[in-house]
Amino acid sequence: MSKARTLTGFMELLPQEQLIMNNMMETIRKTYELFGFTPLDTPVLEASEVLLSKSGGETEKQIYAFKKGDTELAMRFDLTVPLAKYVALYNNDLTFPFKRYQIGKVYRGERPQKGRFREFYQCDIDIIDRDELNIIYDAEILAVIYNVFRQLNLSDFTIVINNRKLLSGFMESLNIADKTTEVLRIVDKIRKISEADFVACLEDLQLEKDIISRILAFIRQDGKNAEILQSLKNMNIDNENYHQGLQELETVVDKARKFGLPEENLKIDLSITRGLDYYTGTVYETFFNQHPEFGSVCSGGRYDNLSSVFMDKKFPGVGISIGLTRLFDQLRSCQMIESGALTPSKVLIILQDSAYIDTAISLCADLRKGGVNCDIYHKDGKFKAKMNYANKIKVPYVVIIGEDEVASGRFTLKDMNSGTQQQLSSAELVEFVKK
Amino acid sequence: MSKARTLTGFMELLPQEQLIMNNMMETIRKTYELFGFTPLDTPVLEASEVLLSKSGGETEKQIYAFKKGDTELAMRFDLTVPLAKYVALYNNDLTFPFKRYQIGKVYRGERPQKGRFREFYQCDIDIIDRDELNIIYDAEILAVIYNVFRQLNLSDFTIVINNRKLLSGFMESLNIADKTTEVLRIVDKIRKISEADFVACLEDLQLEKDIISRILAFIRQDGKNAEILQSLKNMNIDNENYHQGLQELETVVDKARKFGLPEENLKIDLSITRGLDYYTGTVYETFFNQHPEFGSVCSGGRYDNLSSVFMDKKFPGVGISIGLTRLFDQLRSCQMIESGALTPSKVLIILQDSAYIDTAISLCADLRKGGVNCDIYHKDGKFKAKMNYANKIKVPYVVIIGEDEVASGRFTLKDMNSGTQQQLSSAELVEFVKK
Repeated sequence: MSKARTLTGFMELLPQEQLIMNNMMETIRKTYELFGFTPLDTPVLEASEVLLSKSGGETEKQIYAFKKGDTELAMRFDLTVPLAKYVALYNNDLTFPFKRYQIGKVYRGERPQKGRFREFYQCDIDIIDRDELNIIYDAEILAVIYNVFRQLNLSDFTIVINNRKLLSGFMESLNIADKTTEVLRIVDKIRKISEADFVACLEDLQLEKDIISRILAFIRQDGKNAEILQSLKNMNIDNENYHQGLQELETVVDKARKFGLPEENLKIDLSITRGLDYYTGTVYETFFNQHPEFGSVCSGGRYDNLSSVFMDKKFPGVGISIGLTRLFDQLRSCQMIESGALTPSKVLIILQDSAYIDTAISLCADLRKGGVNCDIYHKDGKFKAKMNYANKIKVPYVVIIGEDEVASGRFTLKDMNSGTQQQLSSAELVEFVKK
Repeated sequence: MSKARTLTGFMELLPQEQLIMNNMMETIRKTYELFGFTPLDTPVLEASEVLLSKSGGETEKQIYAFKKGDTELAMRFDLTVPLAKYVALYNNDLTFPFKRYQIGKVYRGERPQKGRFREFYQCDIDIIDRDELNIIYDAEILAVIYNVFRQLNLSDFTIVINNRKLLSGFMESLNIADKTTEVLRIVDKIRKISEADFVACLEDLQLEKDIISRILAFIRQDGKNAEILQSLKNMNIDNENYHQGLQELETVVDKARKFGLPEENLKIDLSITRGLDYYTGTVYETFFNQHPEFGSVCSGGRYDNLSSVFMDKKFPGVGISIGLTRLFDQLRSCQMIESGALTPSKVLIILQDSAYIDTAISLCADLRKGGVNCDIYHKDGKFKAKMNYANKIKVPYVVIIGEDEVASGRFTLKDMNSGTQQQLSSAELVEFVKK
């Protein structure tokens, strides 16, 4: 006999939690479609050289890669490289702007630790266009992030934005353009290290004290978004990148408001850089105000060229990703998700005696025909045991079928939360429960 | 520069087809939930010894297995073994009967050929109980199959059923019980081989001519379900298995009718055996009447013991599986799926001039708040080019925003199918499109 086990770092849920997870995924999916994103599904397995065409050492170590026959295969570690491949392969058949969402599992063989998974869901959206992509899409992405979390019944969160052009323009104005990448990598760590360590890191780059102070002062600018924008203008920095970045930031903040994003949920934070060189304009991160330890729960940004490793044509885009498995795990560990039923059924039909089965089946068929998720409990036994089962699965309504119900065709519907009962016909039952 | 490519045997769809595929998957999911099945999601990757604990040579050759670090890993090749593992691991935490559905990708490194995929979706349901499982569930599964295909707008199909106890009881009555497995394996092929080959195969088992004739006569019984049942009774076979199987078959046919399954969609076919020894009672297959070349599009059956390779406790169950990727591919190749829009959006907002963007954003936000999937087209250019885009993505409605609309707050909604236009306020627009 074999030993049943599930690998470490792979999430496997009991039905009650799985239903919540699925509801979250469904909410994200519906919100993405509300914003006109179309679904995409790419293979989990790809040729290794396709997935590894761009990546560096860390990814290569984590990737699940193997050989089958003569083919070197790998399991995808994100949904971005598959998208780049997809656009490179099918761009002649696609209609641009191409707004796609993809919700799927990705694989990273990391050392398992709390909150890190080897198999996890990413929920991505990207808007891709040929040659140029309108800046308003950067604002629309903010509206998507806001709506997703509101639909997930989460409200106490802040989306922080910044602009990489603004940052690099600022570095150019300090005459340290050649160190932009390294400096931004350090800036990205500012919330994780002390100020002393931060300064030390910048000193290691041979930056002068004055430059370091100006960088610190710059990234620490705080206040309302309008105040930060004004203060950025007041700096009178004469640099094209800086001006373009500032203008983009201003447009994005303005249009996001018009898309319905409240001021309190959006904050310019000039210390947000996103580590990757990949991003070239707007960058996003999202934090729960009461849970900074979660880290960013939704991140992304604007990039100039999605498929550069596969082709010469230019496809700029903007996108974000939600790491759903990790988010679910974090919310669960903070009791931020309510546990509900163990079944998608709204009604459980219980028989006082199995002789009434045909009436039960017929009612069940009527309810399902009316679109009501329902089920029959078939086990014989004491009535109390049957009600115990209903309580255990937390079904909202129970219909009890006995001699009277079979004779009259009217059924007793019990509301399991309030305990109230009422007599209804099969058609009335459908109507009542659907409300 | 790397070459973008997708592996052979891995389905990757353009947006238009992907939307249809996703709608099919959603329809299946909703129907499963209508019948009270709860979602389950298990890892794609498992320890090799878990997946291969039962399987024979063919599976082992096809499986994607590899080593990472010290661990032997494999990608799941079905959703049944992971379910057996899941029940073995968590049965103390589960509430029985446990009705679960799982829709997920599975992997088989078959030689690629038309209609065969190496990565494909299976859509499974199973009902598991401890020790014993009520026979009515076998009938309910039939109602699920029927409803799934009807909801997929397919009607010209037949679900065929049989019962393995009836078959083995019949073999026992012929005194060839020791050859049941081999005989049933040959019976399973009857639609694929000629009668002469069929007889030759049985002769190879050293069966007498008379026995072979009786087998042929038995499995070829035809007529209405009631007629076949009557004829099975009239055979007066004195065998316990035979009687139990016959009684089960009769109950399943009777209860399925009461669950709403029309007579014409259900047919007893005594030649259906399902190859696997795994099944012990009711077996199901489903065929499109006009497309026998599809083979069975939904199969399954009753089994005595789900998790026997992992544990001693007995968990009988009944279940079915739909191979969705293959079904989609078959329906597509027969033009049995209608191609629709390239976007989930119901409304596309077009601007006569980009100066009207704030009005467009505000209307777009209102529509989305009202639950209407919508989008704004941002590209400048001739009006005709904008309408061409709307036609290309086959969006059902377009709103055109010009000077008058900005001034009046009333919008022109164009129905892209009928060509009719009407003037509506933002609130009226939401209401109209949601209808």
